[in-house]
Amino acid sequence: MKVVRIDDLRGTDQEVISPAGWTSVRFLLKKDGMGFSFHETTFPPGLEFDMWYKNHVEAVYCYQGKGLLTNRETGEEFVIEPGTLYALDQHDRHTLKAETELKLVCAFNPPVTGREIHDEDGAYIIAPEDQE
Amino acid sequence: MKVVRIDDLRGTDQEVISPAGWTSVRFLLKKDGMGFSFHETTFPPGLEFDMWYKNHVEAVYCYQGKGLLTNRETGEEFVIEPGTLYALDQHDRHTLKAETELKLVCAFNPPVTGREIHDEDGAYIIAPEDQE
Repeated sequence: MKVVRIDDLRGTDQEVISPAGWTSVRFLLKKDGMGFSFHETTFPPGLEFDMWYKNHVEAVYCYQGKGLLTNRETGEEFVIEPGTLYALDQHDRHTLKAETELKLVCAFNPPVTGREIHDEDGAYIIAPEDQE
Repeated sequence: MKVVRIDDLRGTDQEVISPAGWTSVRFLLKKDGMGFSFHETTFPPGLEFDMWYKNHVEAVYCYQGKGLLTNRETGEEFVIEPGTLYALDQHDRHTLKAETELKLVCAFNPPVTGREIHDEDGAYIIAPEDQE
C-alpha cells in the first residue's frame, strides 16, 4: 500500500507547472507498477489548451469547475462540469477551455514515466526507453 | 472520444448501490478498452467497510470528505482527506471508515467488467470469462 499526499509532491519533479498555465501533479507513474499513471490537473480560469496524446489513452474526470471540451476531429463541443468524464480512446485531438478553475483527475495508459515532453502538437512523446 | 455524465448512469447497471451503504458509479469498464476501469465511489458518514481486492490493483483519490484508512496487513492507519491518494499495489486487506461523506475517484487494473461480485472477503471475484 502506498499513500501519497498532494502537499508532499508540491515542488518536486512530480509536480509539472506548464508555461501555458496548467499544473499537473503525478501521484502514480510507470515506476509504481499499477499499469496506469494517475494525475490531478488544474486548469486556471480562461486557459484554453490544445492537446493530442498520440501514444496514450486518457480518462479525465472533472470534480470542480466548468469548461468546454472541443473534439477537433469532429468539431463537437461538450460542457465539462463536476460529474463529467471524458475518455480519449481514439487519440483524439482536443481543446479544453476553462471557464472557472477546473480540477481534473486523470489516468493514462500506458502509464506516464514522468519524463515525457509535450511536442509542438501538444502530444506526450514516449520516453526513448519505452519505444519499441 | 466518449463523454459520460454521472447523471446518465444513475439507475443503470453502471451505478452499484451496496447494501452496506456505499455507491459506486462506473464510468469506464473493461468493454471501453482503456486498459483500466474508472469509478466514483461515495462513502456515507460513519460507514466502515472491509475490502480486499485479491485480483486487482486499485488507485483511490479523495477529493471530498475525511476518513481513516487502515492497512489490515500491518495495522497502519492513514488519514484520508482531499488531496490524498492511496494505491493498493500489494492486494492489501484494508478498511476504510468515513468520518464525513467521502468522494473517491478510483481506477482498477485489470479493468472491472461490471459483473464482479464482492465475496465474503470483500474481494472482487474475476468474472469467469476473464479467468485464465
